[in-house]
Amino acid sequence: MAATETLTAERILEATEEVLRRHGPAKATVVDVARALGVSHGSVYRHFRTKAALREAVTKRWLDRTSEALDGIAGDGARAPETRLRDWLAALFTAKRRKAGDDPELFATYSVLAGEQVGAVAEHIDELTEQLTRIVADGVAAGAFHSEDPAVSARAVFQATGRFHDPAYAGEWDRAEADADFAAAVDLLLRGLRA
Amino acid sequence: MAATETLTAERILEATEEVLRRHGPAKATVVDVARALGVSHGSVYRHFRTKAALREAVTKRWLDRTSEALDGIAGDGARAPETRLRDWLAALFTAKRRKAGDDPELFATYSVLAGEQVGAVAEHIDELTEQLTRIVADGVAAGAFHSEDPAVSARAVFQATGRFHDPAYAGEWDRAEADADFAAAVDLLLRGLRA
Repeated sequence: MAATETLTAERILEATEEVLRRHGPAKATVVDVARALGVSHGSVYRHFRTKAALREAVTKRWLDRTSEALDGIAGDGARAPETRLRDWLAALFTAKRRKAGDDPELFATYSVLAGEQVGAVAEHIDELTEQLTRIVADGVAAGAFHSEDPAVSARAVFQATGRFHDPAYAGEWDRAEADADFAAAVDLLLRGLRA
Repeated sequence: MAATETLTAERILEATEEVLRRHGPAKATVVDVARALGVSHGSVYRHFRTKAALREAVTKRWLDRTSEALDGIAGDGARAPETRLRDWLAALFTAKRRKAGDDPELFATYSVLAGEQVGAVAEHIDELTEQLTRIVADGVAAGAFHSEDPAVSARAVFQATGRFHDPAYAGEWDRAEADADFAAAVDLLLRGLRA
């Protein structure tokens, strides 16, 4: 890649992902990233002051891809609350499954990073739970859902569907019964939320 | 231990657990078990024909301790279905928490074994799900629960509460919010089951 192109944080993160994919999370270094970009490692450090900061940023970027895609559904007032909740949970399951299935090595790499970046993962989970809270609160306001505390209900729904988004369960996602299990979980939870 | 005592399968399994605790699952051998019992390894092989069979039996014994304790609750017709379901889920969470908290090394050892003994674990999960199915079916018969298929609902409840019994989540069980999370999950699922 030509070093004359402006070196943006985004370009560095793209290269970092590629380096992580190639070398694995244990071996990837800032020097590898700089080499892939044809720049000095000092130039990389100007954007990310430590290797840890770079790893955190690339993890956050990976996680944000999922939450940004779901944010549109959470805020879509045109869909009925129940439809919105179903669509949101289905979109989350689809996104995670696709990430795990299409590029298993990159998924494994990010699973290792997620284990290190506890703060970034907690933030990501908070973001997703806030989106769910918005859906539950809108449902309560519309008289479709019952919930004494939408944040508590949202957290319960998120945790109860962990099997369909927590990477610890990735090995189960291509099993024949996964779709039926998901449907049964969503039906039961929606019955529990209905006013 | 005196070799003159009758060498029962149960005595071998007790010794195996102790050997596993001491040496870890990677290093424990049948010879270690025989030595702990003061018998020849041939005597152990007369009860368990292979090391794999011994490891499977000791894993099954560990898992059975949980399901046997819960079976009494599942079959207790004196408790109302909703109480029975709450008590059963709470007893499962308590049992798992205690296993993880009281003897973390043994718990880690059995987690490794469970990863190997896929068949024994699947059987264990089937047993627990059957107990739950009994509770749901009794609840439907009593007019307390609604479910088109108690087996499907039971499976959904079991999976939705995975966070409170799947060893993958053991690290979360002593967090301050675990009890509130558990209560919120059970409340939401019971609302979903109620007729």
